[in-house]
Amino acid sequence: MYSRSFESSQNLQESQSVMATILQNLPKECSLTKIEYEGPRIALHTNKPQFLLENNKILSNIVGQIKKRIVLRIDETIRIDESEVQKVAEKHAPQESGITEILFDPALGEATIFVKNISEIIKDEKIINNIILESGWKISFKKIPKNMVTIKNINKIIRNASDYRIQFYKRIGEKIFREKLDPNIEANLNSLGGFAEIGRSSMILSTNESNVLLDCGMNIYTKDPLSRFPRFDSTGIKLSEIDAVLLTHAHFDHTGFLPMLFKYGYDGPVYCTEPTSYLMYILYREYIRHSGSEAHYTDKELEKIFSHLIHLNYNIVTDVSPDIKVTFYNAGHVIGSSSFHLHIGNGDHNFVYTGDIKFGKSSYLENAVWNFPRVETLLIEGTNGGREDSYSSREDAQERLIEVINKVIKNQKLILMPAQLIGTSQELLITLDMLIKQKKIMKCKLYIEKLVTEINSIHEFNVEFLNRELQQSIISNDYNPFRSKNIASILDITTQKLDPGIIIYPSSMLNCSYSKDYLKRISNDPGNLIIFTSKPTGMTLGKEIIDGQRKLSINDEDFEIRCAIETMYSFNSHSDFNQLNAYISRLRPKLRKILVNHGERSKVQNFSGYSSKVHNISTQYLQNQESIKLL
Amino acid sequence: MYSRSFESSQNLQESQSVMATILQNLPKECSLTKIEYEGPRIALHTNKPQFLLENNKILSNIVGQIKKRIVLRIDETIRIDESEVQKVAEKHAPQESGITEILFDPALGEATIFVKNISEIIKDEKIINNIILESGWKISFKKIPKNMVTIKNINKIIRNASDYRIQFYKRIGEKIFREKLDPNIEANLNSLGGFAEIGRSSMILSTNESNVLLDCGMNIYTKDPLSRFPRFDSTGIKLSEIDAVLLTHAHFDHTGFLPMLFKYGYDGPVYCTEPTSYLMYILYREYIRHSGSEAHYTDKELEKIFSHLIHLNYNIVTDVSPDIKVTFYNAGHVIGSSSFHLHIGNGDHNFVYTGDIKFGKSSYLENAVWNFPRVETLLIEGTNGGREDSYSSREDAQERLIEVINKVIKNQKLILMPAQLIGTSQELLITLDMLIKQKKIMKCKLYIEKLVTEINSIHEFNVEFLNRELQQSIISNDYNPFRSKNIASILDITTQKLDPGIIIYPSSMLNCSYSKDYLKRISNDPGNLIIFTSKPTGMTLGKEIIDGQRKLSINDEDFEIRCAIETMYSFNSHSDFNQLNAYISRLRPKLRKILVNHGERSKVQNFSGYSSKVHNISTQYLQNQESIKLL
Ligand SMILES: [Zn+2]
Ligand SMILES: [Zn+2]
Repeated sequence: MYSRSFESSQNLQESQSVMATILQNLPKECSLTKIEYEGPRIALHTNKPQFLLENNKILSNIVGQIKKRIVLRIDETIRIDESEVQKVAEKHAPQESGITEILFDPALGEATIFVKNISEIIKDEKIINNIILESGWKISFKKIPKNMVTIKNINKIIRNASDYRIQFYKRIGEKIFREKLDPNIEANLNSLGGFAEIGRSSMILSTNESNVLLDCGMNIYTKDPLSRFPRFDSTGIKLSEIDAVLLTHAHFDHTGFLPMLFKYGYDGPVYCTEPTSYLMYILYREYIRHSGSEAHYTDKELEKIFSHLIHLNYNIVTDVSPDIKVTFYNAGHVIGSSSFHLHIGNGDHNFVYTGDIKFGKSSYLENAVWNFPRVETLLIEGTNGGREDSYSSREDAQERLIEVINKVIKNQKLILMPAQLIGTSQELLITLDMLIKQKKIMKCKLYIEKLVTEINSIHEFNVEFLNRELQQSIISNDYNPFRSKNIASILDITTQKLDPGIIIYPSSMLNCSYSKDYLKRISNDPGNLIIFTSKPTGMTLGKEIIDGQRKLSINDEDFEIRCAIETMYSFNSHSDFNQLNAYISRLRPKLRKILVNHGERSKVQNFSGYSSKVHNISTQYLQNQESIKLL
Repeated sequence: MYSRSFESSQNLQESQSVMATILQNLPKECSLTKIEYEGPRIALHTNKPQFLLENNKILSNIVGQIKKRIVLRIDETIRIDESEVQKVAEKHAPQESGITEILFDPALGEATIFVKNISEIIKDEKIINNIILESGWKISFKKIPKNMVTIKNINKIIRNASDYRIQFYKRIGEKIFREKLDPNIEANLNSLGGFAEIGRSSMILSTNESNVLLDCGMNIYTKDPLSRFPRFDSTGIKLSEIDAVLLTHAHFDHTGFLPMLFKYGYDGPVYCTEPTSYLMYILYREYIRHSGSEAHYTDKELEKIFSHLIHLNYNIVTDVSPDIKVTFYNAGHVIGSSSFHLHIGNGDHNFVYTGDIKFGKSSYLENAVWNFPRVETLLIEGTNGGREDSYSSREDAQERLIEVINKVIKNQKLILMPAQLIGTSQELLITLDMLIKQKKIMKCKLYIEKLVTEINSIHEFNVEFLNRELQQSIISNDYNPFRSKNIASILDITTQKLDPGIIIYPSSMLNCSYSKDYLKRISNDPGNLIIFTSKPTGMTLGKEIIDGQRKLSINDEDFEIRCAIETMYSFNSHSDFNQLNAYISRLRPKLRKILVNHGERSKVQNFSGYSSKVHNISTQYLQNQESIKLL
């Protein structure tokens, strides 16, 4: 993001002879050494980058003509050795930036420079330009996050796969930009998982030219393979016939099956935002660690994923096959979460898959995007599709949160807030830290586990995916909630001495291995408080408590809940019933059909009936293993 | 039908060791020489048939235990030569029967004896029994129809394929009665054609064990292959993976693609009623004759169809795969037309596909069956699914018919009644002939083409598929409308002298090659009358006239319609809007879901909406190339 705009793109119709147009439009001064497909883009390699860096209108004009993404690459022959880059960078960057680390991607000739202070660098475009010209590396700067483990691990994987990736990008580009084989345009949506249920979201969008997989989740709450995995067995499509995988966001119910896809032979591209890829890596590692010998996959499959990964940013139209263009839009659910706008054929059909969306206020993300250029069919999530799933406004909920927390903290007691690891944990952490900063909540500790810190670091690393306000205040060093002094670590909940404060515990239904320890620590003291932020689901400890059970037995050990219990669903990362309907109301003029997925059967059923009537648009929920014609 | 009951069957649950149960239950006197699968049945071969013929309770008891169809076969060693059968038959049958022809099927050891008078033979069971015992052939008697061409042609095909068929029946039986491979029961319906349209009805019912094709139509009114043929290309199922084809009735929009299925490699069984198979043969031949070098198939494919054909009667439960049992029920649409009751797994799901149905009075067929043992999902045709598709009662229509016809006949003029070749033509012929017989219509000629006579002959051949009254009166020689003296042949409409009468012309929309000649003959005289019996469809001459056009141009020749025009849709072979709803009302208590096919989009759309509201059952129409989960 804080790099020179090396890339241009535009949302228009296709043109014919792409390479010819490029060559005709580029002056000799560009000094091209190679034009090549690089995944969904056309890479222009030059050994004199200065001309195109200084005349960057030239490239955006070509993009306007060919309607394909173009990326500028610097010829390998003029790149300096990795070991010399730091010296060059230090020469051009202000002293106070504090360069701490540089990660290289030799396959693409890119280098990411991590610095302590980034604000001076982004003020002056010349700094990056000079480093690029002197080093021959395509440079970007990032503010260094608290925890670099995941970022370094992934960098190691992609470095090791450099040779493979160069060939892979070429191969994929040739598939995407091939001529269409069939003059007829048809499109079907095949439901594989996550329809009339939550837990293994996956579907295939298939046309006469291509099969694109949208999400690839796994339901870890069941062992039965027919309920655990997406039903690839029921389509006629082989894994090798899938042309692309698109992931809306990192949650395991949208990504958990992806390693198995590679295990069983998939070797095509995976498209997602950068934060999605880093977060899902953390989740995969956690899954492997927890599952031990029962894990369905190992680090080997993770390496495969990351050598096939292509990052997409929001709002850029990208060809993923000869007849499908996708644009990712912010979905407001978790960092990097996306809704997909899929443009099929020559705009013959426009299909939007919301993924999980939050169409409502958040402390750290922008609201879900709804103003798509065109939409005929909308597939919307229905997690909160029941009439009973309307929650109080976030403002009201926040007032109540302040009130109940202060009461507990005043008495020097503890609050436990079970929350989803990715999404609600950050929403709460930032909300609470801001409220403490504003002195609305009494000063107290915000306890988090190491895993949450790791997740938070991806938020720092991808700060450009946060809402504008927070982004600005982190970059400018004004305020960074992820580095707040109020945050303290939980190292061992059973023995650690804890000051009055709030524990954000990353298991929303208390159904993790350590939940019992947390519950034991909190529940015995009538002065303590547990606040649930997600609706009760499954056969979980959380559900039992929310449903009113006070005498519990965990692993044959009986104990009693003596502390207070509250529920506050307004901080949840999903839209509530009203927000879903508000979202549809905005889109309504463009819609012809609404499909509903990602929700218990009763919820999606209710939501379909309600939407058909209230919005007067044909609305239907699918089950898994169904196929519906879009076009 | 007028044969000894050689077959027993029953609708119950499965048992395990089928062969063992049979062997344990049969006394030595049965003198079995072989037990073998024969398609969906188990064939018991004996060289002493007398014992089992006389003690036929033994077999029905075994069927009750094993819940499989059993058929008794006579060992080839005791069969007399074909040339000697007539002598044996003449010895036992009464003189006045008038044996005129015997057709043999050596593969099954069956012989059909055609006689002039059948009433005496069916009164005395001993006649057939004695011929069987003396000849070693499994005998049945049929009254000889007017035209034997089709019947003989088909007999020739199956005789030539005798050796192949013996192996084929064994192969199919082994597939049907194999053990299930998958403990899970799931079922999907995949729409290939005839959904939200009329013209190429076809769908696949697929479970974890099997793929069964329901109907296999072709839309001859379009040349575009994407609209003409069922969309086999869009499923993942190869033709070789289809286990069985079931046909509801003979109309081309339900059978026309079947020869191509064989052309492209299908070699499994085709199940339909006897009249369906004979009628479709006639239609295939007509199609080949008319299409010339453009025909998609030849007699070679027809031979393949008939060597893979297995006739089913109504109301008999038949295994067609390890987890699907089908029962054909009378659908009242045309002779031999069926609704399918498909019993999936161990009754885990019961799916009824109505095919085309007439739930209303007919002059020659019983009303469509509706009292199925169990139904969860109903797929109903929606031809008349529009609100505007309610017609006047048949009684009222008949009064009006009498009135308008008498007016024309009194003036010594002609009436042209365009009608569907199979179905409405017979409905009209029989209605009109009866009304003449009852002197409600003035005596006049009923003109038909040779092709209609051929179709009528299949009705005589399969008289047991007509309604009980008509059946009885034909068998007893009391009254046979197909041999009425009122019937006269049209040999050449352009030159033939015609007495006052009614021409039943087998093209309901006057869109056949000879329609113009008929129209020219009739339309110029203001005293003549044309009565349309089908709603206007397509870009047809019929539609133009019904819509009010009176000046027409056919092949650049202009002419004017001066005769009177009437429309009377109540004689149509499809249920009208009210009849469709009456049918659903009867089934309602058993239903969980209704699907609609076979109707223009606006009709099935209207019908789905109406049915959801009025019957309060989730109703939905599918499009082609969709897949919906039943179970
Ligand atoms: Zn999610
Ligand atoms: Zn029909």
